[in-house]
Amino acid sequence: MTAATSSLPRHAIVREVGLRDGLQSIATVVPTAHKLEWLRAAVAAGQTEIEVGSFVPARLLPQMADTAQVLAFAKTLPGLFASVLVPNLRGAEQALAGDADLMILPLSASHAHSLANLRKTPDEVVAELGRIRAARDASGRKTLIEGGVGTAFGCTLQGRVEPAEVLRLMQALLDAGADRVSLADTVGYADPASVSRLFEQALKIAGERLSCGHFHDTRGLALANVHAALLLGIARFDASLAGIGGCPYAPGASGNAATEDLAFMLEAMGIHTGLDIPALLALRARVAGWIAGEPTHGTLWRAGLPKTFAATAA
Amino acid sequence: MTAATSSLPRHAIVREVGLRDGLQSIATVVPTAHKLEWLRAAVAAGQTEIEVGSFVPARLLPQMADTAQVLAFAKTLPGLFASVLVPNLRGAEQALAGDADLMILPLSASHAHSLANLRKTPDEVVAELGRIRAARDASGRKTLIEGGVGTAFGCTLQGRVEPAEVLRLMQALLDAGADRVSLADTVGYADPASVSRLFEQALKIAGERLSCGHFHDTRGLALANVHAALLLGIARFDASLAGIGGCPYAPGASGNAATEDLAFMLEAMGIHTGLDIPALLALRARVAGWIAGEPTHGTLWRAGLPKTFAATAA
Repeated sequence: MTAATSSLPRHAIVREVGLRDGLQSIATVVPTAHKLEWLRAAVAAGQTEIEVGSFVPARLLPQMADTAQVLAFAKTLPGLFASVLVPNLRGAEQALAGDADLMILPLSASHAHSLANLRKTPDEVVAELGRIRAARDASGRKTLIEGGVGTAFGCTLQGRVEPAEVLRLMQALLDAGADRVSLADTVGYADPASVSRLFEQALKIAGERLSCGHFHDTRGLALANVHAALLLGIARFDASLAGIGGCPYAPGASGNAATEDLAFMLEAMGIHTGLDIPALLALRARVAGWIAGEPTHGTLWRAGLPKTFAATAA
Repeated sequence: MTAATSSLPRHAIVREVGLRDGLQSIATVVPTAHKLEWLRAAVAAGQTEIEVGSFVPARLLPQMADTAQVLAFAKTLPGLFASVLVPNLRGAEQALAGDADLMILPLSASHAHSLANLRKTPDEVVAELGRIRAARDASGRKTLIEGGVGTAFGCTLQGRVEPAEVLRLMQALLDAGADRVSLADTVGYADPASVSRLFEQALKIAGERLSCGHFHDTRGLALANVHAALLLGIARFDASLAGIGGCPYAPGASGNAATEDLAFMLEAMGIHTGLDIPALLALRARVAGWIAGEPTHGTLWRAGLPKTFAATAA
């Protein structure tokens, strides 16, 4: 350990979002049976946190129509912490009915993106989080609530998003009852310096309740951005197997950080993830087969693990 | 500026190696006229340091047979600092004859790789550097000598390469008369933590004479590795337009860090490069046309610059 690496966490969690952010972004509707197979294999490969779907109306996202069924299966898998995306109170009620471990309410710090995507202002989303918190508390469920602040580094519609506005909304989500918050570079506008600046400020507000970083690889910087956040002690990152998903405004460009590449980077750095990378690569190949014709990303699957890897990780 | 970014350099140089590391790795032999056009356009896009070729026997690398001619043209371009790779004293004599600004002697810290690639042990390469230094001093030329320590993070043949051996060889190169040294992750085995550790140690030995980092993107970590080195104040990085070149042991995998993606990352971080990124993207498209059918890499060319970019960089 050196001065340059002394602040790195010893353990980190790669939260799989391929079944939600990945599958909702592609035209192929993956059958429920394949989703369950994915979940089973992901858990066998050591994944402990998976976003299994989204409780949005099926007419808007038919890819997510089976979320209740997928969540029910996820709850049977020992050791799996299953999260779902909920766009509103109605979705949250479904998450509570399914006893999700975590529900994530997305908020867009970009007003333009918020109105276009969620048809609400960011502050209306904050108010919705308050209602979700009340519903959760009334339900007796232990489902945690995460407020996910998206377009936190800029927006393809609005352009610049003020960090002060991102931080104000993060504070507002916590005040409204979020158990945790996260920051997302929804459109791949972040760079390691802006990640350092924003996460450093966000940590001052949220401390350990700042639970996750979500970086898209649209311009190739996802892993560099993860590195910047790691150096601040952030130890949970969203990623999707084969890097699927992402930004509809940049066709052909990568989506999320690829789970397998991120897992490799972390393990190579000596940061324990509990993940079995060869098993992830095998699962990646199966998933890529299920969504044949859809763009996939990532580099490790081509190059393979370095000859030195076992020694490094051990 | 925050604690997390305070150590970043304000300026950085992206040294173009596409004409050497890139073109020598592909089967297509790019005509000299295209190389000169590439050089002219690269300088117009703000590139100030370019590795223009390699003085190796033409029967070994026909792609590099016109290096003397390309170097002669490069020397006519105002403001361009032109370097060449030289595998031995014979190559160095050609570099001196052509009045190169810099000659780079590659040394493989992996003994297995050194014997396979250079047919010399690393210490024999150190001795060759001593002879090159004597030849340079006798010539009256101002050509600088860089000792490039490759396979510094591991090797596909040998596996592990001991950091202590990398550092010993770096010191030996300096002792033998190298003006500068650089560290290269020839096969894409580095990660941000190993980069931090090795560069931190190397800086203790070489100080400002540690002039450059060379990272391959074989496993997607090139830009994260650059970020780790930037945080130690390293401010020069090799890269190739369209990410061409790279590792013959990982077919299909990315080669070098892509010039245009690296330039974007640096400028987005507020680190001045002097590069005109749209001009680089335009040149990338032309180069990709000249080498049609060869694999190219990088992400920025697909996604384009963020809407916020001009404001960020200004």
